[in-house]
Amino acid sequence: MKKTLITVLALLLGVSLFAQSAQERPRFPRFKVLAFYNPHVEEAHVQFAEEAVKYFKGLTIGDGFVFDVTTNMADMNDEKLKDYRMIMMLNDVPHAPEQRAAFQRYMENGGGWFGFHVSAYNDRHTDWPWFLDFLGGGVFYRNNWPSMPAKLVVDKSDHRVAKGLPSTFIAPENEWYQWKPSPRENKNIDVIVSLSPDNYPLGLKDIIPDGDLPVVWTNRNYRMVYVNMGHDSRAFTNSTQNYMFINCFRWIMECDPEGNPFLR
Amino acid sequence: MKKTLITVLALLLGVSLFAQSAQERPRFPRFKVLAFYNPHVEEAHVQFAEEAVKYFKGLTIGDGFVFDVTTNMADMNDEKLKDYRMIMMLNDVPHAPEQRAAFQRYMENGGGWFGFHVSAYNDRHTDWPWFLDFLGGGVFYRNNWPSMPAKLVVDKSDHRVAKGLPSTFIAPENEWYQWKPSPRENKNIDVIVSLSPDNYPLGLKDIIPDGDLPVVWTNRNYRMVYVNMGHDSRAFTNSTQNYMFINCFRWIMECDPEGNPFLR
Amino acid sequence: MKKTLITVLALLLGVSLFAQSAQERPRFPRFKVLAFYNPHVEEAHVQFAEEAVKYFKGLTIGDGFVFDVTTNMADMNDEKLKDYRMIMMLNDVPHAPEQRAAFQRYMENGGGWFGFHVSAYNDRHTDWPWFLDFLGGGVFYRNNWPSMPAKLVVDKSDHRVAKGLPSTFIAPENEWYQWKPSPRENKNIDVIVSLSPDNYPLGLKDIIPDGDLPVVWTNRNYRMVYVNMGHDSRAFTNSTQNYMFINCFRWIMECDPEGNPFLR
Repeated sequence: MKKTLITVLALLLGVSLFAQSAQERPRFPRFKVLAFYNPHVEEAHVQFAEEAVKYFKGLTIGDGFVFDVTTNMADMNDEKLKDYRMIMMLNDVPHAPEQRAAFQRYMENGGGWFGFHVSAYNDRHTDWPWFLDFLGGGVFYRNNWPSMPAKLVVDKSDHRVAKGLPSTFIAPENEWYQWKPSPRENKNIDVIVSLSPDNYPLGLKDIIPDGDLPVVWTNRNYRMVYVNMGHDSRAFTNSTQNYMFINCFRWIMECDPEGNPFLR
Repeated sequence: MKKTLITVLALLLGVSLFAQSAQERPRFPRFKVLAFYNPHVEEAHVQFAEEAVKYFKGLTIGDGFVFDVTTNMADMNDEKLKDYRMIMMLNDVPHAPEQRAAFQRYMENGGGWFGFHVSAYNDRHTDWPWFLDFLGGGVFYRNNWPSMPAKLVVDKSDHRVAKGLPSTFIAPENEWYQWKPSPRENKNIDVIVSLSPDNYPLGLKDIIPDGDLPVVWTNRNYRMVYVNMGHDSRAFTNSTQNYMFINCFRWIMECDPEGNPFLR
Repeated sequence: MKKTLITVLALLLGVSLFAQSAQERPRFPRFKVLAFYNPHVEEAHVQFAEEAVKYFKGLTIGDGFVFDVTTNMADMNDEKLKDYRMIMMLNDVPHAPEQRAAFQRYMENGGGWFGFHVSAYNDRHTDWPWFLDFLGGGVFYRNNWPSMPAKLVVDKSDHRVAKGLPSTFIAPENEWYQWKPSPRENKNIDVIVSLSPDNYPLGLKDIIPDGDLPVVWTNRNYRMVYVNMGHDSRAFTNSTQNYMFINCFRWIMECDPEGNPFLR
């Protein structure tokens, strides 16, 4: 009966039956993450965002971290951001000058950023030099079409984000973006995973014939990871890719200048 | 017309169109499996059980083995069990003394057991020494939280259960259980697959920082395999993991003291 | 505003936002593919066909190649076929003599064929010597049952179809067909991927105990690829297998005697 009561209580609270049973386990300090997405962009980018929200929300089950979601880019302001230790950009970039300024202040003050796919899109119309530098200097150059799986290669196997990953793996369907110049040429950038040349020529309509194509990278001057994935509803159907996403997420939090929340 | 008629008949019978065409193929003797699950436990454990039932039921299509399912633990009695060559425990353990005694008699008389996740859960309240010995002596120690994919390592590549598996692979989302002492320390236990240390520290809320974490093992004194998986509805979404589950299932049946049903 | 307008237009046109932005990218010439399937055959073969249609249709999003689907085998005639650079046979073979003759003419005049699973089925009743030669001479011999995942081995890693594939991988659930004699014994056949002997004995009801089992092959005298997959609704749930399917598809088109459409 006592066991049953505990079980019922645990279920009501939405926590694991065993979550409290090991006193020696490090306690989890809640932290807050804010995910931005735009529900009015290209359909496959919205599908991705919805899958991402579902996936990361799932990681909070049982009194985990706080995962808030907004579709209002005006939330990119100092007052709103101050409570969040990480922002995720699922399918958009800040457009208005005040949003851009708030984002820049957030990052320069140690904020965390986990950006996907089109969240790094910039071209000659973007007119935001700080952002270009933040990303490593790459302007959008070209993409494959349609969305296709691709073989990825781990370039920097000693990076925390690559920990546990196989040296190569085939990732689910995605529209892969190539940048010019490659962020790899920037001395502040660590390219952790990139597209294998084995994929070339990649595409059935729009073809990427060759060239460097970083997929996961970080700018060592900021607490940030960019991943190329973000097109298509299949992004969270592959165990290896999910593992990599969580590595990215966890590492961004581990580097929090306010302290690694997983050690407290 | 004759072909059409045969096709229709084959479809009506639910068998493969070609199932009967090769006379030299070994005949399949039907055997019976009984799966237990509790629909009133932690939600993710129920989701797993429902996916497992769907998956194993799917393996019986076309006049295959008999796969019965019960949510009544009172079915753990001599009379009910005598027809089954394997029982599967999807998310629970026998609680009542007479159920425990029937289970023990079943296993000691050559019965087969395929246990998942919480079916090996035991702590200081469990008070069932035989069961603890059956499992290899490990008491539940701690788990990661939330459910996360993990890199697994094949420890015993020459074991039938590991046949065909890659030396490492990343398994789908799961709540991974660690046991103390590790079943590996028990001389009767063969640990076939375990969690890679590359995963540590594992968790975003409850953290497993280190230590041995067997994932698939067998006690050589019984016809049994335990697998750590069993949390989350994604358990059957990975081809490699599905392959491993079938290896476990098939091996338990191959070892039946009444004869390997796949050879008859 | 201008950006918003462009976005809206791009969405209305169903094309990628960036699809037109790189003028130096090779332009995509549309080509036409016709997929045949029979909605009245074994249920798992229909499920596969429906998944295949969904998957390949998805590759045409945004003004890509033309992918037409028919469930009428009478469409296998010169007039209908003349517009198509590839036909896909998802779960059937031409039965009527005039359909068979039209198919033979199509292939002998440089047509493309991408065949799945039962599309190569033939036995002593088939009475179509040209087709048997086209396939490499193998008559249906036996299959595993039920549908199960299997470990595959790349035999010919320098073939375009194998480009980027790992040397082995575990493919999703399928009913695997074995042929006698093995197509590998035919000097015109390139076996690109085959079933690993590690899978044997394969099956829980119908057992394939041993022997060569080519999974992906081509007859060098024709523009064709056969793949063993085609049973079960899970065929398109594995990134590596999807990658391989696209490799097959692309290579068949690359070899078009009317010109590689991806280079124009």
